[in-house]
Amino acid sequence: MALGSNGKKVAMVIAGNFEDSEAIDPKNHLEGVGAEVTTIGIEAGTVKGKKGATLAVDATFADVSPDDFDLLVIPGGGAPENLRIHPPAVEFTRRFVESGKPVGSICHGPQLLISAKVLGGRTLTAVDKIADDVVNAGGTYVDEPLVVDGNLITSRVPGDLPQFNEALAKALVGELVTA
Amino acid sequence: MALGSNGKKVAMVIAGNFEDSEAIDPKNHLEGVGAEVTTIGIEAGTVKGKKGATLAVDATFADVSPDDFDLLVIPGGGAPENLRIHPPAVEFTRRFVESGKPVGSICHGPQLLISAKVLGGRTLTAVDKIADDVVNAGGTYVDEPLVVDGNLITSRVPGDLPQFNEALAKALVGELVTA
Repeated sequence: MALGSNGKKVAMVIAGNFEDSEAIDPKNHLEGVGAEVTTIGIEAGTVKGKKGATLAVDATFADVSPDDFDLLVIPGGGAPENLRIHPPAVEFTRRFVESGKPVGSICHGPQLLISAKVLGGRTLTAVDKIADDVVNAGGTYVDEPLVVDGNLITSRVPGDLPQFNEALAKALVGELVTA
Repeated sequence: MALGSNGKKVAMVIAGNFEDSEAIDPKNHLEGVGAEVTTIGIEAGTVKGKKGATLAVDATFADVSPDDFDLLVIPGGGAPENLRIHPPAVEFTRRFVESGKPVGSICHGPQLLISAKVLGGRTLTAVDKIADDVVNAGGTYVDEPLVVDGNLITSRVPGDLPQFNEALAKALVGELVTA
């Protein structure tokens, strides 16, 4: 029996130039199933997406711990490359992945996972533009809409969002089958 | 005695979302010293920079050979990640680097060098956002405005353009000291 999503807590890491739909769609979807989504940024304020959407930063990395959340979501666009040069974001991500709790990453999201040095031996997908970087970081790159390897849930592009969102919601209630 | 730049031929590889100044400034500088700059793209037409500048594509990769040029320039922004998933661009770059002729790369430019698998044992700089990818590709990352290692000339950001442009012009006439 699955637990409900009510009260489940989601950390979404964001920064400037995020891919609008890859943050907003999962946020709406997870809130729609009763979860509470906290956007975590480098500094307080708002951040702007590639296509002009804005998101408020609910907390900075100094305010939070991986222990506070049940799921981590890493949207794509230009945000991951901004987060990967902020050591508290890298450390938060590394600890989250190592906790074994589910982590969803889409598009350029694995750039942050590469810098967190957690991809050795993992199988994942990402936007094709960073496939070589995933491989050089020790990962196995698969070109599929949704890849689940243990606690790592990955998709490639905005067109994969329906499958990504569904997988995130399942992972949140412990329903996702992980190898 | 240095040769003049007149008649020297420069290949500049471009694609959509290039960092405007990192293409246009070196192009203007090299043309100003008498070189002929050919922009090489994925397909005929024009490409648009991140900030709205447009550049005409003079030739596609099918039209050219590394043998046709004396210097390769790889501007940054989003262009390198678009070029690195186009095999003819990767092959052109790999052959150019292996030819020993000078190659200038700025900002995200090394993403194309990573996919060309030519960074093993090389020392270079790039925008800090891809430093971890450079290291995972076998390179040594140095945070300096200009790094010259053999035929590889690299800079980090638009603010480094004065040094980058000067180094490219020197390399074109064989004046750059390479280790």
